[in-house]
Amino acid sequence: MLETLSEHGCFGGVQGYYRHEPAEIGLPMRFSVFVPPQAAAGAKLPVLFYLAGLTCTEETFMIKGGAQRVAAELGIILVAPDTSPRGAGIEGESDSWDFGVGAGFYVDATAAPWEKNYRMYSYVVHGLRQTILREFPADPQRIGIFGHSMGGHGALVLALRNRDIYRSVSAFAPIAAPGKCPWGHKAFGNYLGEDRQAWKQYDASELMRGLRSPYPQGILVDQGLADKFLAEQLLPEEFEAACKAASQPLTLRRHEAYDHGYYFISTFMEDHLRFHHQVLVG
Amino acid sequence: MLETLSEHGCFGGVQGYYRHEPAEIGLPMRFSVFVPPQAAAGAKLPVLFYLAGLTCTEETFMIKGGAQRVAAELGIILVAPDTSPRGAGIEGESDSWDFGVGAGFYVDATAAPWEKNYRMYSYVVHGLRQTILREFPADPQRIGIFGHSMGGHGALVLALRNRDIYRSVSAFAPIAAPGKCPWGHKAFGNYLGEDRQAWKQYDASELMRGLRSPYPQGILVDQGLADKFLAEQLLPEEFEAACKAASQPLTLRRHEAYDHGYYFISTFMEDHLRFHHQVLVG
Repeated sequence: MLETLSEHGCFGGVQGYYRHEPAEIGLPMRFSVFVPPQAAAGAKLPVLFYLAGLTCTEETFMIKGGAQRVAAELGIILVAPDTSPRGAGIEGESDSWDFGVGAGFYVDATAAPWEKNYRMYSYVVHGLRQTILREFPADPQRIGIFGHSMGGHGALVLALRNRDIYRSVSAFAPIAAPGKCPWGHKAFGNYLGEDRQAWKQYDASELMRGLRSPYPQGILVDQGLADKFLAEQLLPEEFEAACKAASQPLTLRRHEAYDHGYYFISTFMEDHLRFHHQVLVG
Repeated sequence: MLETLSEHGCFGGVQGYYRHEPAEIGLPMRFSVFVPPQAAAGAKLPVLFYLAGLTCTEETFMIKGGAQRVAAELGIILVAPDTSPRGAGIEGESDSWDFGVGAGFYVDATAAPWEKNYRMYSYVVHGLRQTILREFPADPQRIGIFGHSMGGHGALVLALRNRDIYRSVSAFAPIAAPGKCPWGHKAFGNYLGEDRQAWKQYDASELMRGLRSPYPQGILVDQGLADKFLAEQLLPEEFEAACKAASQPLTLRRHEAYDHGYYFISTFMEDHLRFHHQVLVG
């Protein structure tokens, strides 16, 4: 069951907000979809999932990203989920801005009391994707994924673990080695428990080290050098080294004077959409 | 005295947030400025003021408008003030979403208790403009103005009353005849009192009727036909008739399936920037 919350004309297509109740989460979840004008012709279109960062919602990317213009030109469906379950009612889930509500970290929690609802990994990979394929003119063979910060981590992890699903992947300022930074320690320690072996399946740098050129057409990562989280939390050099060890082509662009926010992201958004389009459509 | 609140790299330029205390308002006011990369070459650049609608702030346009990309291409400085004084402490000023805080209506209030601080007309025309010309590389001979809804009303009124200052003007879904709609009645009745003659100096359709082709290079207005405020509050047909009577060239585009929000505005933003650039720079 898909509930339409609102739909808005946008660049000749439709910007919509929807709600469903996926089995993976067990609670109502909101998500947003931009359907470009090419959908009117009846063909199945490539689809690009965007995962947002800490404190964001399904609205953030659609409001701030500036992606619809280029998606309308290229004929790409854009999808953005929320960043965590809402309304689980777990004690303390709203106490931190970097854990709990708004900070699901795209993992399947295994530790109490999070393991029942906080299953964003399976939700995005399965429940949300299935809803999109059922309700929108999306081509299951041409799916890409990208994201920002916590969502950049999520995009890289989901892609590296599901190469049969996600054919292209990119990120803005991803948390590139969450096993080695404070945000990752807090999230993984609480959601997954203290067994650090279990953390590795949600660490893009660790996953990359176990693979061999998983995305031969390359991975695109943009990083601002005025990003205050760069040195302590993001650690792109860890992912860069892992890609090198895995013979994974990586375009890691470091930009002077750009910070962690959407003024940075929107500046390079067009490049990411064209990158995905090139890989998905050619 | 200009206080820098934050600055962010954006499309090769700088997106900044600032605070000053203009004499017209008597309270600290925030505003935002986008300076495009062409400023580095040292020339004075054209500047475009954007006035936002009810409930908005100096952030709204810069976050949701998607204007910086084209402004960076064309070399235009963008400026957005807040939509009302903040902190006047007048009883009831925050009770309504369409009056008081967030709803200054770009008038100089003459009625108590608003007349001391609620002077957005003079603030935008004088105090803010003088600060911009002093602190940024803005060309005083190439200033344009545009806005949305209440801010579309503001842009049209400020332009029609100050043709020596504003050389180009456009609007998204403006409140085009505030003397004839509920929003205008509420705002003008409270800010200006019940003398309806005084309202006319803040009514774009009334002002236009007293002029003869004030903007010979044309005025651009976009209006969505799925806009729920169209029939009762916006009344573009009043402005259209006034332009016709004044021999004012008007491009009034009516768009099926677009509503009152920023998905509509961002869709047509590029057209507005190119329109202003054509008039200001040629």
